[in-house]
Amino acid sequence: MNLKNSMVHRFKGNPILTKGNVPYAVETVHNAAAVKILGEYLLVFRSHLRNGRSILGLARSKDGCNFVVAPEPFMVPAREGVFAEYEEFGIEDPRICQIDNDFLISYSAYSRHGVRIGLCKTSDFRSVERIALITQADYRNAVLFPAKFQGRYVRLDRPHTEIAPWSIWISYSPDLIHWGDSRVIMKPAPYHWDQMKIGPGATPFRTSKGWLHVYHGVFQTMDGAVYRLGVALHDLEDPAKILGVADEWILQPEEPCEVTGYVHNVVFTCGAIPEDDGTVKIYWGGADTVVCMGTAVIDDLVGLCLSAPRPPM
Amino acid sequence: MNLKNSMVHRFKGNPILTKGNVPYAVETVHNAAAVKILGEYLLVFRSHLRNGRSILGLARSKDGCNFVVAPEPFMVPAREGVFAEYEEFGIEDPRICQIDNDFLISYSAYSRHGVRIGLCKTSDFRSVERIALITQADYRNAVLFPAKFQGRYVRLDRPHTEIAPWSIWISYSPDLIHWGDSRVIMKPAPYHWDQMKIGPGATPFRTSKGWLHVYHGVFQTMDGAVYRLGVALHDLEDPAKILGVADEWILQPEEPCEVTGYVHNVVFTCGAIPEDDGTVKIYWGGADTVVCMGTAVIDDLVGLCLSAPRPPM
Repeated sequence: MNLKNSMVHRFKGNPILTKGNVPYAVETVHNAAAVKILGEYLLVFRSHLRNGRSILGLARSKDGCNFVVAPEPFMVPAREGVFAEYEEFGIEDPRICQIDNDFLISYSAYSRHGVRIGLCKTSDFRSVERIALITQADYRNAVLFPAKFQGRYVRLDRPHTEIAPWSIWISYSPDLIHWGDSRVIMKPAPYHWDQMKIGPGATPFRTSKGWLHVYHGVFQTMDGAVYRLGVALHDLEDPAKILGVADEWILQPEEPCEVTGYVHNVVFTCGAIPEDDGTVKIYWGGADTVVCMGTAVIDDLVGLCLSAPRPPM
Repeated sequence: MNLKNSMVHRFKGNPILTKGNVPYAVETVHNAAAVKILGEYLLVFRSHLRNGRSILGLARSKDGCNFVVAPEPFMVPAREGVFAEYEEFGIEDPRICQIDNDFLISYSAYSRHGVRIGLCKTSDFRSVERIALITQADYRNAVLFPAKFQGRYVRLDRPHTEIAPWSIWISYSPDLIHWGDSRVIMKPAPYHWDQMKIGPGATPFRTSKGWLHVYHGVFQTMDGAVYRLGVALHDLEDPAKILGVADEWILQPEEPCEVTGYVHNVVFTCGAIPEDDGTVKIYWGGADTVVCMGTAVIDDLVGLCLSAPRPPM
């Protein structure tokens, strides 16, 4: 049981980004991937345009709280080739994963054919090279582990199915293009805060006890769905093995900018940055409208996974 | 325009297999993969058990019309390991593809996690070795091309999506385990006999003009869905390129055993065998209850694809 009143300590200056911070026309600034490079914090965030479709923007910060948005969008739907066909309706919800000197960015690509996961890479956050569309349709919320396992890349994602509650699957790739050995490893728990569906959230990060994954879970109420955040701990050597899923959520919509907005009652994460002092900065979209952040003690989150777990399946 | 009254000439002795031909307890004998080996015809067919779940049976014939069913089931859900978890609710709708000396069999694996595609192989149709589960959920109707293209295996399948009408996708693999470079290549046509959904049918076979693929298309009526068969021609060198999709269906439910049965108004194919005389034997399930067969002239089917095509997308 969680004896602390709150696992995540919200930043007093939330929201840290709103559309007013963006020097080009957007209507939202929300789900943001996060990475720290040589002491600088970078967010790659999703924004809705006024046609209802999404693009990705870039923001930089020295302290992880006060961000300056780059003057131009970071990434917009491709204009030619196969990516243009599948990004026609927009690109959404990025995640950043550093492997060696590359920053891999997975994102949702929407088109008339459904929603699938695109993968691109950058080394400098100026130019972006698209690698592949790594799922068919419909998939959202792919995160890569920032390490290879027995020579293969590993991702988590969330396929849509008509048969089962939407769950978290794992897949493997030798080359980032061809993926296989997929398995479902974590499912919503009935009559639980995440009973409707779950999905990968932030890129997992390494702790002494395992890979910590901040995911999202959804509960359907009579007045719409509520998105909250939870934590799961994956084995360091075998990320398909879940050592524990915290029974309790770690964050739910409570602040005005999380409870009301474009989509009410949503906290949704695409990025978390572990710090050397044993804390982690978690970034989340509030009500699909703004970016918020907060801090948690990594050992607290790990402890919550191990001390009061629910079964992953 | 199709000036012939019918593209497919039904065998007079249809249905060629019913549950009465099976020496073990089953309630249906329907969707059958087909292959011809050294002059012998083999069917691997789906049967419902009385618990509502499906297994696969084997039948052999000297003439392609009169089949004898093997005394034991050919393949039942795996009892251990990862395949057992994903085949819990049954295995369905096999397709056979010969590459080199192996016969690859793709099938639908049902479980509480959704429906995905399993892949196994056999060299003798006695023992079967499972290779991998090659999709996540939900997917059905995977067929492999009986050739490699630039060193890669190629499959067609049909992902379920909430966003688009269910369509035919292509994917590639270097090793049969990891798959990628997926694209949608053929979609249902609005207000057309296949407007609700389409899916791969028989394993494509080589003709002088291209790979001929007999697929299924579905139209939703006020009294349920009607499954018919159509044909598409794929480029010999680049199977993602469709040279033509026949505007007209080639077969619809008309015989009593196709119009009525467990699922009314279904003709559904999992296998077709091209013959040296320029004809092709097409096998189809009638009303999800029995196996039927018929013969078509390959040049007629190719001509229908090229002379009166509709756009594949």
